Amino acid sequence: MSETRTEISSLGEFGLIDHLTRNFEIQNASTILSVGDDAAVIDHFGKQTVITTDLLIEGIHFDLMYTPLKHLGYKSVIVNLSDVYAMNAIPTHITMSIGISNRFSVEALDEFYEGVYAACSKYNVDLVGGDTSASQKGFIISVTGVGEVAPDKFVKRSTAKKGDLVCVSGDLGGAFLGLTLLEREKKIYLENPQIQPDLENEDYIVGRLLKPEARKDIIEFFEKNDIVPTAMMDVSDGISSEILHICKQSNLGCRLYEEKLPIAELTRQAAFKFGLDPTVCALNGGEDYELIFTLKQEDYDKITLNEEIAVIGYMSELEEGCKLLTKGGNTFDITAQGWNAFRG
Amino acid sequence: MSETRTEISSLGEFGLIDHLTRNFEIQNASTILSVGDDAAVIDHFGKQTVITTDLLIEGIHFDLMYTPLKHLGYKSVIVNLSDVYAMNAIPTHITMSIGISNRFSVEALDEFYEGVYAACSKYNVDLVGGDTSASQKGFIISVTGVGEVAPDKFVKRSTAKKGDLVCVSGDLGGAFLGLTLLEREKKIYLENPQIQPDLENEDYIVGRLLKPEARKDIIEFFEKNDIVPTAMMDVSDGISSEILHICKQSNLGCRLYEEKLPIAELTRQAAFKFGLDPTVCALNGGEDYELIFTLKQEDYDKITLNEEIAVIGYMSELEEGCKLLTKGGNTFDITAQGWNAFRG
Repeated sequence: MSETRTEISSLGEFGLIDHLTRNFEIQNASTILSVGDDAAVIDHFGKQTVITTDLLIEGIHFDLMYTPLKHLGYKSVIVNLSDVYAMNAIPTHITMSIGISNRFSVEALDEFYEGVYAACSKYNVDLVGGDTSASQKGFIISVTGVGEVAPDKFVKRSTAKKGDLVCVSGDLGGAFLGLTLLEREKKIYLENPQIQPDLENEDYIVGRLLKPEARKDIIEFFEKNDIVPTAMMDVSDGISSEILHICKQSNLGCRLYEEKLPIAELTRQAAFKFGLDPTVCALNGGEDYELIFTLKQEDYDKITLNEEIAVIGYMSELEEGCKLLTKGGNTFDITAQGWNAFRG
Repeated sequence: MSETRTEISSLGEFGLIDHLTRNFEIQNASTILSVGDDAAVIDHFGKQTVITTDLLIEGIHFDLMYTPLKHLGYKSVIVNLSDVYAMNAIPTHITMSIGISNRFSVEALDEFYEGVYAACSKYNVDLVGGDTSASQKGFIISVTGVGEVAPDKFVKRSTAKKGDLVCVSGDLGGAFLGLTLLEREKKIYLENPQIQPDLENEDYIVGRLLKPEARKDIIEFFEKNDIVPTAMMDVSDGISSEILHICKQSNLGCRLYEEKLPIAELTRQAAFKFGLDPTVCALNGGEDYELIFTLKQEDYDKITLNEEIAVIGYMSELEEGCKLLTKGGNTFDITAQGWNAFRG
């Protein structure tokens, strides 16, 4: 962090917004009016508008002890764009609101916005509005993503069909192991601040947690190869939880194969190091921001050449339930782990 | 509040969202896909899309000691719709995210959503998404409003012209006096919980604070009478602050007349009771959620019959500055009070 400290109060609300948004240049013709008025104006020229929103709260969704502010800004945008891609849509705009206590300086916010800016720039998205507020405690981030899709080309969760292939992009479980590692290092540091963190060879899993990407490439691949998934969502809570949503909303069951789950070698090694089962990490670890989708079987040939897509199973009758077939030949019910922030 | 207490954890995140959104029926043909997927889908059928967002934080923007949760839900929607109307657009959709600590029960959230539902229903707006999260402390509300406007019929802040009339809807200063009253009663209560609050005859100012409305009627009046304001914004920080935005962004000055400021008789009486100047309350008190707008002089005849619109001055050359002419014949510079949440 820079050594200069400029108090937020020295700029005032409007000065702060001007300062934070000064580097944003409009990239999309659809942006008719941007930051600086009561609202922004967007024209998707006949396409349909997709909208999604996320609320990220310090201490619940992120820990500033091991999350650099620039990465946090980047990731805040990415998690939101990931939801837009999961509709088979192209993100075009975001609004970003933040609530901050006065422990943050203008320089700290600049770092956060550098990350926001980098993500917007990489994904060709315009920041068109937001709100800047004081908070009594902690850093609060609210992002709303807007995208566009050709009329009725969006992909829901509820439209998978029996026999469809279940596919997933990239690899799974890395972000969860990155979190496990950083939580361990935090605990060690808090017990003895003299001990330096041991993150050697852990770039991959730490990067999966702190600097995820959204799967723009997969949506572009679908477009280019004339593929429309029958159902799709992004992997934020873990694929166990996500496939159960698709099954429930599509009124179907599924059968997944443990041996087909894509797990990176570095993720596998990290799991063994922590005494964890890589399969469990892949199924229940969240925040991978991959896409899980179902495809008609006749589309199989179209995806075989894409190494970023793995077929992990198929959709079955509702009565067959949601099952995982293990490498050892056993069959287990898939159950959702996940959201329990209100417990305990 | 109901006597039953259901813990939020008993429903889980998705159960909670299902529960809270169970009564929302889609009202707009533009709502192609609503709650329950990664994102919502909207089709404005050739119109342009307007988008605005607000972040409301307990202890900064509202005090639950004197704000009923149902009113808070209602107001959270209204303040956002007000921004959409201020673009001369019609709101069609909102997303609503909340962060809540486990001191809130499901019944408390139901009350909040009753207010959200009432506002959506009254203004014909569909709730199409959101996020429900734990918070470590306090209640956090993030609302994004979406609206539609015929191509290029939106009204900015920057397009007022010299000689245009400055107009305001409704009356000013009431919400600020409502806040002053409730803060006084809170202080008295905290000092001596035996003393009952004295809110007799104060319904008007308390209502202005706790249950504001957005000026849908004014936008509909414009449409019916073929009026397009030259510039417009909503009154959230006080008209001093707002007119300075219009002047700065339009590169003009203005001249307002104290005697023309619309102040309700009940607001005036409350001001005197607190030893405050009603004019200062009208200029600097925020949260009135009225519309301030500029009109071509030739449109004057069209608005004279609308008792909800007051002409309070006119736009002048930049060099003439932003001035208030008092009843006593003196001229003062208009200065922005307002946002100083980061100070002190």
